[in-house]
Amino acid sequence: MTEVDKMTKIEFNPIGVIHSPYKHRAEAPFQGIFSDEKFELEFYKEYIDGLKDIEGFSHIVLLYYAHKSRGFHLQTTTPWDTTLHGVFTTFSPIRPNAILLSVVPLLERKNEYTLIVSQLDAIDGTPILDIKPYVPSLMVRKNAQIGWMHNKIRFSKKERKEDF
Amino acid sequence: MTEVDKMTKIEFNPIGVIHSPYKHRAEAPFQGIFSDEKFELEFYKEYIDGLKDIEGFSHIVLLYYAHKSRGFHLQTTTPWDTTLHGVFTTFSPIRPNAILLSVVPLLERKNEYTLIVSQLDAIDGTPILDIKPYVPSLMVRKNAQIGWMHNKIRFSKKERKEDF
Repeated sequence: MTEVDKMTKIEFNPIGVIHSPYKHRAEAPFQGIFSDEKFELEFYKEYIDGLKDIEGFSHIVLLYYAHKSRGFHLQTTTPWDTTLHGVFTTFSPIRPNAILLSVVPLLERKNEYTLIVSQLDAIDGTPILDIKPYVPSLMVRKNAQIGWMHNKIRFSKKERKEDF
Repeated sequence: MTEVDKMTKIEFNPIGVIHSPYKHRAEAPFQGIFSDEKFELEFYKEYIDGLKDIEGFSHIVLLYYAHKSRGFHLQTTTPWDTTLHGVFTTFSPIRPNAILLSVVPLLERKNEYTLIVSQLDAIDGTPILDIKPYVPSLMVRKNAQIGWMHNKIRFSKKERKEDF
Protein backbone atom coordinates (compact mmCIF):
# COMPACT_ATOMS: atom_id res chain seq x y z
CA MET A 1 0.00 0.00 0.00
CA THR A 2 1.74 3.17 -1.11
CA GLU A 3 -1.01 5.72 -0.99
CA VAL A 4 -4.05 5.72 1.21
CA ASP A 5 -7.48 7.20 0.69
CA LYS A 6 -10.89 6.63 2.11
CA MET A 7 -11.60 3.81 -0.36
CA THR A 8 -8.53 1.83 0.65
CA LYS A 9 -9.46 -1.60 1.96
CA ILE A 10 -7.63 -2.83 5.03
CA GLU A 11 -8.16 -6.51 5.60
CA PHE A 12 -7.55 -8.51 8.75
CA ASN A 13 -8.07 -12.08 9.85
CA PRO A 14 -8.96 -13.04 13.42
CA ILE A 15 -6.04 -14.41 15.43
CA GLY A 16 -8.42 -16.13 17.81
CA VAL A 17 -11.86 -16.08 19.36
CA ILE A 18 -13.34 -15.06 22.70
CA HIS A 19 -15.36 -17.61 24.65
CA SER A 20 -17.76 -15.65 26.81
CA PRO A 21 -20.69 -16.47 29.09
CA TYR A 22 -22.53 -13.62 27.37
CA LYS A 23 -24.33 -15.04 24.36
CA HIS A 24 -26.09 -11.83 23.30
CA ARG A 25 -25.17 -8.19 23.60
CA ALA A 26 -28.07 -7.52 25.94
CA GLU A 27 -26.46 -9.84 28.52
CA ALA A 28 -23.09 -8.09 28.49
CA PRO A 29 -22.29 -5.08 30.66
CA PHE A 30 -21.55 -1.89 28.75
CA GLN A 31 -18.01 -1.90 30.09
CA GLY A 32 -15.96 -4.93 30.98
CA ILE A 33 -15.00 -3.62 34.41
CA PHE A 34 -18.59 -4.28 35.49
CA SER A 35 -18.30 -7.97 34.74
CA ASP A 36 -17.66 -10.64 37.37
CA GLU A 37 -17.18 -13.36 34.77
CA LYS A 38 -14.14 -15.07 33.35
CA PHE A 39 -13.41 -15.37 29.66
CA GLU A 40 -11.26 -17.64 27.54
CA LEU A 41 -9.20 -16.16 24.76
CA GLU A 42 -8.52 -19.00 22.35
CA PHE A 43 -5.75 -18.31 19.83
CA TYR A 44 -5.53 -20.12 16.52
CA LYS A 45 -2.58 -22.46 16.38
CA GLU A 46 -0.67 -20.49 13.74
CA TYR A 47 -0.34 -17.59 16.19
CA ILE A 48 0.49 -19.23 19.51
CA ASP A 49 4.25 -18.74 19.14
CA GLY A 50 3.49 -15.03 19.42
CA LEU A 51 2.29 -15.57 23.00
CA LYS A 52 5.76 -16.45 24.32
CA ASP A 53 6.40 -14.62 27.62
CA ILE A 54 2.81 -13.36 27.94
CA GLU A 55 2.48 -14.98 31.39
CA GLY A 56 4.67 -12.27 32.91
CA PHE A 57 2.16 -9.52 32.19
CA SER A 58 -0.63 -8.86 34.68
CA HIS A 59 -2.76 -6.95 32.18
CA ILE A 60 -3.14 -6.98 28.43
CA VAL A 61 -4.68 -4.64 25.90
CA LEU A 62 -7.22 -6.64 23.95
CA LEU A 63 -8.44 -5.48 20.54
CA TYR A 64 -11.49 -7.29 19.25
CA TYR A 65 -14.09 -6.92 16.54
CA ALA A 66 -17.73 -6.13 17.24
CA HIS A 67 -18.82 -8.73 14.72
CA LYS A 68 -22.55 -8.30 15.40
CA SER A 69 -22.53 -4.56 14.73
CA ARG A 70 -24.10 -3.45 11.47
CA GLY A 71 -23.35 -0.04 10.03
CA PHE A 72 -22.59 2.87 12.32
CA HIS A 73 -23.90 6.05 13.86
CA LEU A 74 -21.65 9.12 13.86
CA GLN A 75 -23.45 10.51 16.88
CA THR A 76 -24.97 8.46 19.62
CA THR A 77 -26.32 8.52 23.13
CA THR A 78 -24.67 6.47 25.85
CA PRO A 79 -25.81 4.89 29.12
CA TRP A 80 -24.56 8.02 30.92
CA ASP A 81 -26.78 10.79 29.58
CA THR A 82 -29.42 11.60 26.98
CA THR A 83 -27.31 13.91 24.83
CA LEU A 84 -25.97 12.98 21.40
CA HIS A 85 -22.18 12.72 21.39
CA GLY A 86 -19.70 12.16 18.62
CA VAL A 87 -19.15 8.42 18.36
CA PHE A 88 -15.38 8.96 18.65
CA THR A 89 -15.94 10.31 22.17
CA THR A 90 -17.79 7.12 23.14
CA PHE A 91 -17.14 3.39 23.30
CA SER A 92 -20.17 2.51 21.19
CA PRO A 93 -19.64 -0.64 19.10
CA ILE A 94 -21.87 0.88 16.41
CA ARG A 95 -18.92 2.82 15.01
CA PRO A 96 -16.92 2.99 11.78
CA ASN A 97 -14.36 0.16 11.92
CA ALA A 98 -15.93 -1.57 14.91
CA ILE A 99 -12.71 -2.29 16.79
CA LEU A 100 -13.23 -2.58 20.53
CA LEU A 101 -10.54 -2.20 23.15
CA SER A 102 -10.35 -3.39 26.74
CA VAL A 103 -7.55 -3.40 29.26
CA VAL A 104 -8.05 -6.76 30.96
CA PRO A 105 -6.36 -8.61 33.82
CA LEU A 106 -4.60 -11.73 32.59
CA LEU A 107 -5.51 -14.33 35.19
CA GLU A 108 -3.87 -17.43 33.77
CA ARG A 109 -2.37 -19.04 30.75
CA LYS A 110 -4.51 -22.15 30.76
CA ASN A 111 -2.58 -23.91 27.99
CA GLU A 112 -0.47 -22.99 25.00
CA TYR A 113 -3.38 -21.49 23.13
CA THR A 114 -5.73 -20.26 25.86
CA LEU A 115 -5.56 -17.20 28.11
CA ILE A 116 -8.05 -16.62 30.93
CA VAL A 117 -9.02 -12.97 31.48
CA SER A 118 -11.64 -10.99 33.37
CA GLN A 119 -13.30 -7.54 33.13
CA LEU A 120 -14.53 -7.95 29.60
CA ASP A 121 -17.77 -7.05 27.81
CA ALA A 122 -17.43 -9.25 24.73
CA ILE A 123 -20.04 -11.75 23.59
CA ASP A 124 -19.30 -15.37 22.77
CA GLY A 125 -17.63 -15.87 19.42
CA THR A 126 -16.10 -12.40 19.19
CA PRO A 127 -13.02 -12.38 16.93
CA ILE A 128 -9.71 -11.31 18.45
CA LEU A 129 -7.75 -8.84 16.31
CA ASP A 130 -4.66 -8.25 18.43
CA ILE A 131 -3.29 -8.23 21.94
CA LYS A 132 -0.59 -5.93 23.26
CA PRO A 133 1.24 -5.72 26.55
CA TYR A 134 -0.21 -3.24 29.02
CA VAL A 135 2.65 -0.94 30.03
CA PRO A 136 1.83 1.74 32.61
CA SER A 137 4.46 4.23 31.42
CA LEU A 138 2.81 4.27 28.01
CA MET A 139 -0.83 4.20 29.07
CA VAL A 140 -1.22 5.88 32.43
CA ARG A 141 -2.42 9.48 32.11
CA LYS A 142 -4.25 9.69 35.36
CA ASN A 143 -5.02 13.40 35.19
CA ALA A 144 -6.54 13.25 31.73
CA GLN A 145 -9.59 15.45 31.14
CA ILE A 146 -12.63 13.50 29.96
CA GLY A 147 -14.85 16.15 28.41
CA TRP A 148 -18.59 15.45 28.50
CA MET A 149 -18.06 12.35 30.64
CA HIS A 150 -16.87 14.41 33.59
CA ASN A 151 -19.17 13.84 36.58
CA LYS A 152 -21.34 11.57 34.43
CA ILE A 153 -19.64 8.24 34.14
CA ARG A 154 -19.88 6.08 37.19
CA PHE A 155 -17.53 3.17 37.58
CA SER A 156 -17.41 1.00 40.64
CA LYS A 157 -13.89 1.16 41.93
CA LYS A 158 -14.67 -1.31 44.65
CA GLU A 159 -13.49 -4.42 42.88
CA ARG A 160 -10.48 -2.72 41.36
CA LYS A 161 -9.41 -0.42 44.14
CA GLU A 162 -5.94 -1.94 44.15
CA ASP A 163 -5.38 -0.43 40.73
CA PHE A 164 -5.80 3.20 41.76
CA MET B 1 -21.11 -12.51 10.28
CA THR B 2 -22.61 -15.34 12.26
CA GLU B 3 -19.69 -17.65 12.80
CA VAL B 4 -16.03 -16.76 12.94
CA ASP B 5 -12.97 -18.76 12.08
CA LYS B 6 -9.42 -18.01 11.16
CA MET B 7 -10.34 -17.57 7.48
CA THR B 8 -12.93 -14.88 8.22
CA LYS B 9 -12.12 -11.62 6.48
CA ILE B 10 -12.61 -8.45 8.49
CA GLU B 11 -12.51 -5.39 6.30
CA PHE B 12 -12.02 -1.79 7.35
CA ASN B 13 -11.67 1.55 5.58
CA PRO B 14 -9.52 4.36 6.91
CA ILE B 15 -11.47 7.16 8.58
CA GLY B 16 -8.62 9.57 8.00
CA VAL B 17 -4.90 9.94 7.56
CA ILE B 18 -1.98 11.03 9.74
CA HIS B 19 0.24 13.87 8.53
CA SER B 20 3.62 13.36 10.13
CA PRO B 21 7.06 14.93 9.81
CA TYR B 22 8.43 11.38 9.72
CA LYS B 23 8.50 10.27 6.10
CA HIS B 24 10.14 6.88 6.68
CA ARG B 25 10.07 4.46 9.56
CA ALA B 26 13.75 4.95 10.26
CA GLU B 27 13.05 8.59 11.16
CA ALA B 28 10.32 7.82 13.68
CA PRO B 29 11.04 7.02 17.32
CA PHE B 30 10.08 3.53 18.43
CA GLN B 31 7.53 4.98 20.82
CA GLY B 32 5.58 8.16 20.37
CA ILE B 33 6.43 9.50 23.82
CA PHE B 34 9.98 10.08 22.56
CA SER B 35 8.77 12.46 19.86
CA ASP B 36 8.89 16.25 20.16
CA GLU B 37 6.90 16.74 16.96
CA LYS B 38 3.30 17.63 16.26
CA PHE B 39 1.02 15.65 14.01
CA GLU B 40 -2.17 16.39 12.13
CA LEU B 41 -4.95 13.83 12.16
CA GLU B 42 -7.06 14.57 9.09
CA PHE B 43 -10.48 12.93 9.09
CA TYR B 44 -12.38 12.25 5.90
CA LYS B 45 -15.45 14.43 5.61
CA GLU B 46 -17.96 11.59 5.95
CA TYR B 47 -16.74 10.97 9.51
CA ILE B 48 -16.31 14.45 10.98
CA ASP B 49 -19.72 14.48 12.66
CA GLY B 50 -18.32 11.71 14.85
CA LEU B 51 -15.80 14.17 16.33
CA LYS B 52 -18.46 16.26 18.11
CA ASP B 53 -17.31 17.05 21.67
CA ILE B 54 -13.80 15.72 21.13
CA GLU B 55 -12.28 19.07 22.18
CA GLY B 56 -13.13 18.33 25.81
CA PHE B 57 -10.75 15.38 26.02
CA SER B 58 -7.10 16.00 26.85
CA HIS B 59 -5.96 12.62 25.52
CA ILE B 60 -7.25 10.20 22.92
CA VAL B 61 -6.58 6.57 22.11
CA LEU B 62 -5.49 6.44 18.49
CA LEU B 63 -5.68 3.21 16.50
CA TYR B 64 -3.81 3.28 13.20
CA TYR B 65 -2.61 0.86 10.57
CA ALA B 66 1.07 0.10 9.95
CA HIS B 67 0.51 0.31 6.20
CA LYS B 68 4.18 -0.21 5.33
CA SER B 69 4.49 -3.46 7.26
CA ARG B 70 4.66 -6.61 5.18
CA GLY B 71 3.95 -9.99 6.73
CA PHE B 72 4.73 -10.62 10.37
CA HIS B 73 7.09 -12.30 12.80
CA LEU B 74 5.61 -14.25 15.70
CA GLN B 75 8.72 -13.70 17.77
CA THR B 76 10.91 -10.66 17.59
CA THR B 77 13.62 -8.71 19.33
CA THR B 78 12.98 -5.16 20.49
CA PRO B 79 15.14 -2.09 21.11
CA TRP B 80 15.31 -3.12 24.77
CA ASP B 81 17.16 -6.43 24.71
CA THR B 82 18.53 -9.12 22.42
CA THR B 83 16.10 -11.88 23.40
CA LEU B 84 13.30 -13.13 21.17
CA HIS B 85 9.90 -12.31 22.63
CA GLY B 86 6.40 -13.23 21.54
CA VAL B 87 5.19 -10.46 19.25
CA PHE B 88 2.06 -10.08 21.39
CA THR B 89 4.28 -8.97 24.28
CA THR B 90 5.81 -6.24 22.10
CA PHE B 91 4.68 -3.20 20.13
CA SER B 92 6.33 -4.37 16.91
CA PRO B 93 4.44 -3.21 13.80
CA ILE B 94 5.52 -6.43 12.07
CA ARG B 95 2.63 -8.31 13.66
CA PRO B 96 -0.50 -10.14 12.53
CA ASN B 97 -3.18 -7.48 11.93
CA ALA B 98 -0.80 -4.54 12.12
CA ILE B 99 -2.98 -2.29 14.25
CA LEU B 100 -0.95 0.22 16.26
CA LEU B 101 -2.15 2.03 19.35
CA SER B 102 -0.98 5.23 21.00
CA VAL B 103 -2.40 7.29 23.83
CA VAL B 104 -1.75 10.83 22.59
CA PRO B 105 -2.32 14.32 24.00
CA LEU B 106 -4.95 16.19 21.99
CA LEU B 107 -3.44 19.66 21.63
CA GLU B 108 -6.02 21.38 19.47
CA ARG B 109 -8.92 20.92 17.13
CA LYS B 110 -7.52 22.94 14.27
CA ASN B 111 -10.71 22.85 12.19
CA GLU B 112 -13.72 20.62 11.73
CA TYR B 113 -11.69 17.80 10.23
CA THR B 114 -8.23 18.21 11.76
CA LEU B 115 -6.91 17.35 15.22
CA ILE B 116 -3.39 18.27 16.34
CA VAL B 117 -1.71 15.71 18.59
CA SER B 118 1.78 14.96 19.93
CA GLN B 119 3.71 11.93 21.25
CA LEU B 120 3.22 9.79 18.17
CA ASP B 121 5.48 7.46 16.20
CA ALA B 122 3.50 7.24 12.96
CA ILE B 123 4.91 8.01 9.53
CA ASP B 124 3.31 10.34 7.04
CA GLY B 125 0.30 8.87 5.28
CA THR B 126 -0.58 6.35 7.97
CA PRO B 127 -4.29 5.42 7.84
CA ILE B 128 -6.40 6.09 10.93
CA LEU B 129 -8.64 3.20 11.94
CA ASP B 130 -10.40 4.60 15.00
CA ILE B 131 -10.11 7.02 17.86
CA LYS B 132 -11.55 6.55 21.32
CA PRO B 133 -11.72 8.77 24.37
CA TYR B 134 -8.97 8.21 26.92
CA VAL B 135 -10.69 7.59 30.24
CA PRO B 136 -8.40 7.04 33.25
CA SER B 137 -10.85 4.85 35.19
CA LEU B 138 -10.85 2.38 32.29
CA MET B 139 -7.18 2.51 31.35
CA VAL B 140 -5.10 3.30 34.43
CA ARG B 141 -3.59 0.17 35.98
CA LYS B 142 -0.52 1.75 37.41
CA ASN B 143 0.69 -1.29 39.32
CA ALA B 144 0.52 -3.62 36.34
CA GLN B 145 3.33 -6.15 36.03
CA ILE B 146 5.19 -5.93 32.74
CA GLY B 147 6.95 -9.27 32.46
CA TRP B 148 10.20 -9.31 30.49
CA MET B 149 10.13 -5.52 30.14
CA HIS B 150 10.70 -5.03 33.86
CA ASN B 151 13.92 -3.09 34.44
CA LYS B 152 14.57 -3.07 30.68
CA ILE B 153 12.39 -0.45 29.10
CA ARG B 154 13.59 3.08 29.61
CA PHE B 155 11.18 5.91 29.04
CA SER B 156 12.09 9.49 29.69
CA LYS B 157 9.52 10.74 32.13
CA LYS B 158 10.99 14.21 32.01
CA GLU B 159 8.71 15.65 29.40
CA ARG B 160 5.63 13.96 30.75
CA LYS B 161 6.22 14.09 34.46
CA GLU B 162 2.90 15.84 34.99
CA ASP B 163 1.17 12.64 33.97
CA PHE B 164 2.61 10.49 36.72
